[in-house]
Amino acid sequence: MEHVTDELNPLHDPSRRGFASDNYSGIHSEVLAAIVRANGGHQVAYGDDVYTAELQRVFREHFGERAEAYPVFNGTGANVIALQSVTARWEAVVCASTAHINVDEGGAPEHVGGLKLHTVDTPDGKLTPALLDTLPQDKTGDEHYAQPRVVSITQTTELGTAYTADEIKAIADYAHDRDWVLHVDGSRLSNAAATLELPFRAFTTDVGVDILSFGGTKNGLMVGEAVLVLNPDAVRGAKYLRKTSMQLASKMRFISAQLIALLSDDLYLRNARHANAMARRLADAVRDLPGLTIARPVQANSVFPVLPVEVSRRLMKTFPFYFWDEAAGEVRWMCGFDTTEADIDAFVAAIRSELGSRKNP
Amino acid sequence: MEHVTDELNPLHDPSRRGFASDNYSGIHSEVLAAIVRANGGHQVAYGDDVYTAELQRVFREHFGERAEAYPVFNGTGANVIALQSVTARWEAVVCASTAHINVDEGGAPEHVGGLKLHTVDTPDGKLTPALLDTLPQDKTGDEHYAQPRVVSITQTTELGTAYTADEIKAIADYAHDRDWVLHVDGSRLSNAAATLELPFRAFTTDVGVDILSFGGTKNGLMVGEAVLVLNPDAVRGAKYLRKTSMQLASKMRFISAQLIALLSDDLYLRNARHANAMARRLADAVRDLPGLTIARPVQANSVFPVLPVEVSRRLMKTFPFYFWDEAAGEVRWMCGFDTTEADIDAFVAAIRSELGSRKNP
Amino acid sequence: MEHVTDELNPLHDPSRRGFASDNYSGIHSEVLAAIVRANGGHQVAYGDDVYTAELQRVFREHFGERAEAYPVFNGTGANVIALQSVTARWEAVVCASTAHINVDEGGAPEHVGGLKLHTVDTPDGKLTPALLDTLPQDKTGDEHYAQPRVVSITQTTELGTAYTADEIKAIADYAHDRDWVLHVDGSRLSNAAATLELPFRAFTTDVGVDILSFGGTKNGLMVGEAVLVLNPDAVRGAKYLRKTSMQLASKMRFISAQLIALLSDDLYLRNARHANAMARRLADAVRDLPGLTIARPVQANSVFPVLPVEVSRRLMKTFPFYFWDEAAGEVRWMCGFDTTEADIDAFVAAIRSELGSRKNP
Amino acid sequence: MEHVTDELNPLHDPSRRGFASDNYSGIHSEVLAAIVRANGGHQVAYGDDVYTAELQRVFREHFGERAEAYPVFNGTGANVIALQSVTARWEAVVCASTAHINVDEGGAPEHVGGLKLHTVDTPDGKLTPALLDTLPQDKTGDEHYAQPRVVSITQTTELGTAYTADEIKAIADYAHDRDWVLHVDGSRLSNAAATLELPFRAFTTDVGVDILSFGGTKNGLMVGEAVLVLNPDAVRGAKYLRKTSMQLASKMRFISAQLIALLSDDLYLRNARHANAMARRLADAVRDLPGLTIARPVQANSVFPVLPVEVSRRLMKTFPFYFWDEAAGEVRWMCGFDTTEADIDAFVAAIRSELGSRKNP
Repeated sequence: MEHVTDELNPLHDPSRRGFASDNYSGIHSEVLAAIVRANGGHQVAYGDDVYTAELQRVFREHFGERAEAYPVFNGTGANVIALQSVTARWEAVVCASTAHINVDEGGAPEHVGGLKLHTVDTPDGKLTPALLDTLPQDKTGDEHYAQPRVVSITQTTELGTAYTADEIKAIADYAHDRDWVLHVDGSRLSNAAATLELPFRAFTTDVGVDILSFGGTKNGLMVGEAVLVLNPDAVRGAKYLRKTSMQLASKMRFISAQLIALLSDDLYLRNARHANAMARRLADAVRDLPGLTIARPVQANSVFPVLPVEVSRRLMKTFPFYFWDEAAGEVRWMCGFDTTEADIDAFVAAIRSELGSRKNP
Repeated sequence: MEHVTDELNPLHDPSRRGFASDNYSGIHSEVLAAIVRANGGHQVAYGDDVYTAELQRVFREHFGERAEAYPVFNGTGANVIALQSVTARWEAVVCASTAHINVDEGGAPEHVGGLKLHTVDTPDGKLTPALLDTLPQDKTGDEHYAQPRVVSITQTTELGTAYTADEIKAIADYAHDRDWVLHVDGSRLSNAAATLELPFRAFTTDVGVDILSFGGTKNGLMVGEAVLVLNPDAVRGAKYLRKTSMQLASKMRFISAQLIALLSDDLYLRNARHANAMARRLADAVRDLPGLTIARPVQANSVFPVLPVEVSRRLMKTFPFYFWDEAAGEVRWMCGFDTTEADIDAFVAAIRSELGSRKNP
Repeated sequence: MEHVTDELNPLHDPSRRGFASDNYSGIHSEVLAAIVRANGGHQVAYGDDVYTAELQRVFREHFGERAEAYPVFNGTGANVIALQSVTARWEAVVCASTAHINVDEGGAPEHVGGLKLHTVDTPDGKLTPALLDTLPQDKTGDEHYAQPRVVSITQTTELGTAYTADEIKAIADYAHDRDWVLHVDGSRLSNAAATLELPFRAFTTDVGVDILSFGGTKNGLMVGEAVLVLNPDAVRGAKYLRKTSMQLASKMRFISAQLIALLSDDLYLRNARHANAMARRLADAVRDLPGLTIARPVQANSVFPVLPVEVSRRLMKTFPFYFWDEAAGEVRWMCGFDTTEADIDAFVAAIRSELGSRKNP
Repeated sequence: MEHVTDELNPLHDPSRRGFASDNYSGIHSEVLAAIVRANGGHQVAYGDDVYTAELQRVFREHFGERAEAYPVFNGTGANVIALQSVTARWEAVVCASTAHINVDEGGAPEHVGGLKLHTVDTPDGKLTPALLDTLPQDKTGDEHYAQPRVVSITQTTELGTAYTADEIKAIADYAHDRDWVLHVDGSRLSNAAATLELPFRAFTTDVGVDILSFGGTKNGLMVGEAVLVLNPDAVRGAKYLRKTSMQLASKMRFISAQLIALLSDDLYLRNARHANAMARRLADAVRDLPGLTIARPVQANSVFPVLPVEVSRRLMKTFPFYFWDEAAGEVRWMCGFDTTEADIDAFVAAIRSELGSRKNP
């Protein structure tokens, strides 16, 4: 079940890898093996299968005895279901301006959930109690202002930063003081576990997170995430919202089997540690190059350097990646579970070459 | 890549199969092989990959040169995206009362799309021009009545019946005369191709279907369906609606690769023919049993017999299936690509035994 | 403040009245006087004014001590806010197929509230426990079937029939047994009070109605209805939903002042009794005419006769009214608070003449 | 039809006026007279009446021959209908962070329309091409980013500033260059006409505004606004969206008659000029007081001074007004068509007294 040969895979060259997104990767071999193992015979559809039952047990091991997992297809689905399950129709979400739910989900929170997002500008993608204080403080009970009910943070953030457990606890306390709840968009939660060197529950359940979106696809799955309820008292109707929001898989066993594989034998952690290490290796190798600066901390599996736009454009032809803020020359380099040291070294060589040729034309 | 052994599959007994749903089955071996082949290396996420490009070509072979395919996760997603893409915010859908979109999608059309469904009662799950005439005929331009814009039919229907090509053409003509469009919920479109003995386009594109939901999961995929645009002039924004409606797969190559496998080497047809044949075998074997009647035609992969409720309850313990209308004693038996003749024969024997023991207690 | 003269009213002829709709009428003089009286000076906007406070007291007198009123603009608004306030995002509404919310609100329940309507066919517009039993009985907890949470009935119905207090109690009991709630679309609730000869609370609060839409406009207001909460335990967020659903009036004092006038000195009852009496007068005068039949009971302010379509078309030119079911020759004649005996007599004379001329051409 | 006496108006003291909101005012006498004149007789409901027809003519006089008016109940309704009528389900709105649609409509754009708002920070509530350039510039065609389709500006703004005609033209050109449209939230459009000393069309139709929300209530109506289509080529379904969004008045003649009165004999302009003049009088009288600063330009009918919070709190007891930014000590004083010079002078005296007593306690 190792990487397949070119012969079996005529449509693309599996040796080609870039730094565009951790979604460009394929399926980790242990996850693929789990899919194959789960095949054969009948299983009750829509989640009443033995794999989804087992997944509950596995998630409880990692997140505590009250955890309830609802496997879904993708991260947008997990986020919008989670946010709907903790809000009434008239209640609103507080998030960073840079949050994936605000910028990158095609308006799904608004379209599917009718959700109002109150956004807060941040320097590094991370909310804090002080930043939350910049929201209107005198609108409680005022029906003209969609009433905040949930704070949503991303861990690790869209800017590659990680909240510490204490930082999350401070936001959870802030939220709970107002009878709000705390949601974590954990599409890269495993990368946070790796960088914080903490078990999941130490920076989620134990510090007051009520509900989270648990990411699988970016960390080695073919398809699959989960809405993970940590505080059932704060959540209503996740089961129904999953169907009504079109995220209920019929052959759910295959989503669950993948998630079980990810959470078994520390695969989530091995993959995330590796991806994080690759990002550090990349950052360390280029940090001191003239013409390139890395302004943001490298705490997970992404690097946000600033370099000349024309250099980036040339590099992208061989090593795909995206501009983050083209006007500022900022780009994003993502590493994944399948990034190799050789990938990094080849990329670094190309960067050096392009930057060098630029300096002495 | 054949069915795995019990040793690899400790969580369930793959030899156990019932008649509850074609969604209870696993992944067809050729589809699983396609997933494995597509693994390795990087592919652009979100559909800009070589498999999704190839899928366009494959779908055009089957449905004509104007076909455009948008792979999605599930059938509800395909339906609600398709229906949104042919309606403005204030326009409505016409469908049979028994339609999956009306009864079995948890209100997703209403919740996600804000779609009004005007329902029409039918004797057999099939709409006709005469039945459509029972809708209000004098409300065009009346803003109090959500204006119909699309007729949605299911092929094969929720009651196991199949529209002929002429029947679909009559509905398409009816719709187009009113400047409406025609959508087909084709979650079991392959079963229709098998029973009609026609290529897809002969009962879709060529008779005026504008857009359809192409089913994959029930016919052997792990996960994957497609919104299939046949008349691009009638459709707007399918690409955007797929994301906004949370059905855009990041690692889309794996959905597309499965669909390619299904549409290659007539796999869709082999699987559907087999499932249909199994349903006929089952129906033929029990049709004349005393205490059991089959009121509906058996045109696809389901059988709807009426038998004593207590007999059904006992049978369900060994061979899972569902009541369709418990008050009437009607149940539904679904066959799938993986149903074997031995499955049928064992089930028939059990039915005979239960019905017989009932007669002479 | 009596009806103004033609001189002041150059744009239309105020003596012209037909039988098309109780919405064609103007403002009752006592209501107009209340608007004028409420003018002048400042009042806090959005409902924190003395009139809206007084309205609460008035509604409690009529509906009991727990009643809470939320004035809104129109009936669709009242219905959709009420239904949202008793359902979670995934829950559904049960109503008659003929219900205004299903047929005549332009899809607002679906568009604004994302509400799924499960419809039930009825012979006379009235639901009963037996009819409700025709809904699927085994879907509780099944996320594929949008879960019913509220039954909505219309009093008086769209077909001019009235529920008795006992009939409402039977539906309320049915609903409460299932942990559902009961909503009444009371756009013509006053007509019911008149025909039942009962105080409001005797056929609402006292028999288990949880929330209702209280109609004002059809019974003499310029603009104004109310969401009326009778059982606050069953309702959440009406205040917020009113704003979020765009039904919060800034100068609410003028809506409240009208409703106060309607509920004072039995104006609601005087108007409704008069309208009902006019409908009976009309029905009695034509019931025995050859060529005309009145199939439905005349219990409120509408008459549904069947007569030749060409006769109706000729009559409509002078006395506007609408076809109800043109294919069947059924029309609807509505009477209002402003219908006069002379209006009826002139109309009856015209009907006799048209029917007579038809018989002996 | 002048202001009524206390005797007729027992519920409140009409001599009491503050500076909280132009929505606290009553009905202008000419508007009330128009309501009274429109009463009597029957008019076709839902807009097919002679007043609504006449209103079309009146609006065309002011806004040009292509103008189409859709009377609605309130400003939130006008905004959300207008924005829906120029966007497909997946398209987004660009607006200032301070826009009423973003902050003060209880999430109605998201809830009713599923609309994504992309917000832009501004120094003074006014968008500019340069500020619009701060939005992502490389997301066209990227389905992850809800695609902008309409820029919405407020005239006059929520901060009391007015766009010049040239400033609006620059935004319109910017929008049209991108195939976007321009919407104006004109809840105080008359105040802009007064301060700009321009006819409506000179700063709307003639400079490229495609659709606007025309405000009536704040400028003397009891209830009534209008969606005003200026470029019908850019708009779809306003008629249907008005009903589906619950803003279709049954007795529409009374909304239309009020708007006709407002647009006749320059009433809109007289009222707005007066309100603006009162705001200037107030600002000029306090501008130089020690302990009080007016940081924002006074271009319409509001003043935003900064003064000690405890002074504001004492003043509010007699002259109601609201904090705008309590932390900064900023408050909002609104003047309306009914603010008198005596109101201003009494308020100024109180301000002087409170500020003075504070200095020498």
